[in-house]
Amino acid sequence: MTDLRLSATGLAVDDEGSRLLAFADTVLRGLGQVMFQNNSYAGLLFLVGIACNSLVFASAALLGTLASTLAAIALGADRQMVRSGMFGFNGGLVGIALLCFLQPTPLVWACVVVAATSSSIVMAAMLAALAAARLPVLTAPFVLTSLCVLLASARFGHLQATDLLPAAGLPKAAAVEGVVTVSTFGDGVLNGVGQVFLQDNLLSGALFTLGLLVASRRACLAALAGSFAGMLVAWGMGAAEPAIRAGLFGYNSVLVAIALSGAVLAPGRVATAWAVFAALVTPFVTAATMAVLEPFGLPALTLPFVLVTWTFLLAIRPSPG
Amino acid sequence: MTDLRLSATGLAVDDEGSRLLAFADTVLRGLGQVMFQNNSYAGLLFLVGIACNSLVFASAALLGTLASTLAAIALGADRQMVRSGMFGFNGGLVGIALLCFLQPTPLVWACVVVAATSSSIVMAAMLAALAAARLPVLTAPFVLTSLCVLLASARFGHLQATDLLPAAGLPKAAAVEGVVTVSTFGDGVLNGVGQVFLQDNLLSGALFTLGLLVASRRACLAALAGSFAGMLVAWGMGAAEPAIRAGLFGYNSVLVAIALSGAVLAPGRVATAWAVFAALVTPFVTAATMAVLEPFGLPALTLPFVLVTWTFLLAIRPSPG
Amino acid sequence: MTDLRLSATGLAVDDEGSRLLAFADTVLRGLGQVMFQNNSYAGLLFLVGIACNSLVFASAALLGTLASTLAAIALGADRQMVRSGMFGFNGGLVGIALLCFLQPTPLVWACVVVAATSSSIVMAAMLAALAAARLPVLTAPFVLTSLCVLLASARFGHLQATDLLPAAGLPKAAAVEGVVTVSTFGDGVLNGVGQVFLQDNLLSGALFTLGLLVASRRACLAALAGSFAGMLVAWGMGAAEPAIRAGLFGYNSVLVAIALSGAVLAPGRVATAWAVFAALVTPFVTAATMAVLEPFGLPALTLPFVLVTWTFLLAIRPSPG
Repeated sequence: MTDLRLSATGLAVDDEGSRLLAFADTVLRGLGQVMFQNNSYAGLLFLVGIACNSLVFASAALLGTLASTLAAIALGADRQMVRSGMFGFNGGLVGIALLCFLQPTPLVWACVVVAATSSSIVMAAMLAALAAARLPVLTAPFVLTSLCVLLASARFGHLQATDLLPAAGLPKAAAVEGVVTVSTFGDGVLNGVGQVFLQDNLLSGALFTLGLLVASRRACLAALAGSFAGMLVAWGMGAAEPAIRAGLFGYNSVLVAIALSGAVLAPGRVATAWAVFAALVTPFVTAATMAVLEPFGLPALTLPFVLVTWTFLLAIRPSPG
Repeated sequence: MTDLRLSATGLAVDDEGSRLLAFADTVLRGLGQVMFQNNSYAGLLFLVGIACNSLVFASAALLGTLASTLAAIALGADRQMVRSGMFGFNGGLVGIALLCFLQPTPLVWACVVVAATSSSIVMAAMLAALAAARLPVLTAPFVLTSLCVLLASARFGHLQATDLLPAAGLPKAAAVEGVVTVSTFGDGVLNGVGQVFLQDNLLSGALFTLGLLVASRRACLAALAGSFAGMLVAWGMGAAEPAIRAGLFGYNSVLVAIALSGAVLAPGRVATAWAVFAALVTPFVTAATMAVLEPFGLPALTLPFVLVTWTFLLAIRPSPG
Repeated sequence: MTDLRLSATGLAVDDEGSRLLAFADTVLRGLGQVMFQNNSYAGLLFLVGIACNSLVFASAALLGTLASTLAAIALGADRQMVRSGMFGFNGGLVGIALLCFLQPTPLVWACVVVAATSSSIVMAAMLAALAAARLPVLTAPFVLTSLCVLLASARFGHLQATDLLPAAGLPKAAAVEGVVTVSTFGDGVLNGVGQVFLQDNLLSGALFTLGLLVASRRACLAALAGSFAGMLVAWGMGAAEPAIRAGLFGYNSVLVAIALSGAVLAPGRVATAWAVFAALVTPFVTAATMAVLEPFGLPALTLPFVLVTWTFLLAIRPSPG
């Protein structure tokens, strides 16, 4: 019965089907869970979307998801959770982040395996720590593990950063940079979805959107609306045009909107109202996170999404304790 | 009966009295709660004290308190808590902080409304998160919300800092600056009370002290003793004279002393002993907080008070869990 | 009976024995607990090891342990915990750290007493905060209290840093420095044990190892293996040779290995496997902690040990909540 249910939203797995196919399905669900979709078709489209931008990133995503899923099985994690991809998405994102911000030496690929494995340990730890508060772990293990490895590159001579890693500096007053036009918004909406997987590529963003559409129309709509809302606020507050166009003020709002509009909260009018307010507040938290990480030369990743979603969930449904 | 009890320490509200008057009373209690006083006369004197220094800050305090109180009502927060001003004080402080550290454009006034509303969401979230540990939320929502907006100004070109916002820099060894005299202590005691509302003004400090006296003699005494204790330690450790005179090493001790001597702990000899030690330790935590926030160009606000009070409360009355 | 049990692993205390001797035994156990050993002989050897390097550090360790133990008694802490040295080790480490990183004025010695006393308050607070998650407090109170005083030196002119305190700076890309040889590993293994007490001295490291051997062969083996594992990873990742030789990438792995191989987890094959993986991951967390503290000019102390051990304990034995 479980297999039947799973097959309803993923690759068909008949009772005699190979374990390998089931495992591949688990890995794809892991990629799907980056956007809360327990759906291997969505995961497959996300993987194709990454591959369109870079085969290196797609390989890293696959390797990370594999390593963290295998680690969870070795750790004896809850089978149902593993099967639905809950121990894959953090590892997948860790893989992309390390290859994105560190030069692709063989050592970095080894680090992907160690870090993805560690992300499953952090996942297990946070599941335990947050159980009493009934909070989901979200992408916190990805953020913590990736920032740890990126920080370590300041002491480890064999880890060299790419140009994409921000240089360490002291935050200073911002000036309005560039002019926001309709094309900024056009590019930005899709890039905002793309940046959830750290992909700055319109086609990737479009394929991720398609993946969402396949899995859940509500999630797809929430993603696009969230991306738009994030950009709108960033524009109104005078953020730099290149950052808006690249989707840097959108991707956290994308995830917040998906989470609060139905993926974590039960869908409905009240949840929608919360999701809208949260998506509008997220660009402030995103800008603040970018500034707070500036002296360390670190990217914000999905930390703003985690912080905003936790805060709103605690406020909306206080734990019974 | 509730109204009768409330009227004992605030504006008289007869059973048929207008809702508007009750709401005004709630807003004033919100300002009173900045120093733990569920008392609208105290709140009124605090507001007058702010207005003596700056009508802009007084308006911001009022707007922030209004917005966060209304947000709490819209969120369906506990009525008794709202009525006693518990959802007002964080918003009021957010209002002052934003107008103090950001240039007063219309956009900043809009940010006051959004940030004060957000502070009530953070308040609700922290009430849930800290319930199991039986810890009060204190001014943590004010600190988190304000620091977030101030940090965001490093990415948002339409938010420009005032001269009062510290420039981002790296902490370095301190030298003893200036000579501490009796006049340093004279000014500093009142400024320490004044800085609880970010007011660097002797008359404001005096009016805040009067407000405390009206509401609670113990709290008033604790505030003055805390302010003095904070300065004494800062002087002994070689802090800069201008900072001591401005009350920057006093205001957190003021709040710690009020909280531990009776506002949160039951009053008595033991509580007094704890309050004295905590007030003496607070300047260290204040100096450390200032240094840790220096690379981000952020003010310490009341973060040291929150950290010290939480630590002492946990140590004194462990949760039954 | 309790005394008999205690005497089995410490100084003999007969029923009529002086309270002073019992108190001395408690203080030595406090020093022993730095490496999880409830054993006064171990504590005595640790103290002798510190004294071999510096009588100043040994005096500071003794004063800190004394002050924090007395503070715990005054606070009414659990007698059994106090007696087994659980309120001594944080104070002892605070004493060493302040004398190591601040110039030894009479004021700094006074700060040792205040900070060690505060470390017992932080210990009591964290015992309460972590009880629900069944996590041990470890050396977190030492880390928090010491970093607070060191940070405060950026505002307090009467606290002047020594050359050992790192200068504040922005993290930047690392280059491989120096050549790692067999002598690097030879020195590094013992220095890694020595750095648990901040001692960069081979004889100190050897005496600490001997102290462990007296108390527990398993802990001694874990310490040496942890120190070696930390170095091995740091070398493989291209860390600077002087840092590896000085044991800076070993001491946190030493503590992690002791904790997970038997001191906190029940010993066994599974615990050993966890301890090995954790000791290998710790150098990454150590490098990251060093980088994250660089803008504040702070040393990592044993923060990496605390973070790694908490994470692994939560992952391995989730709380029943």
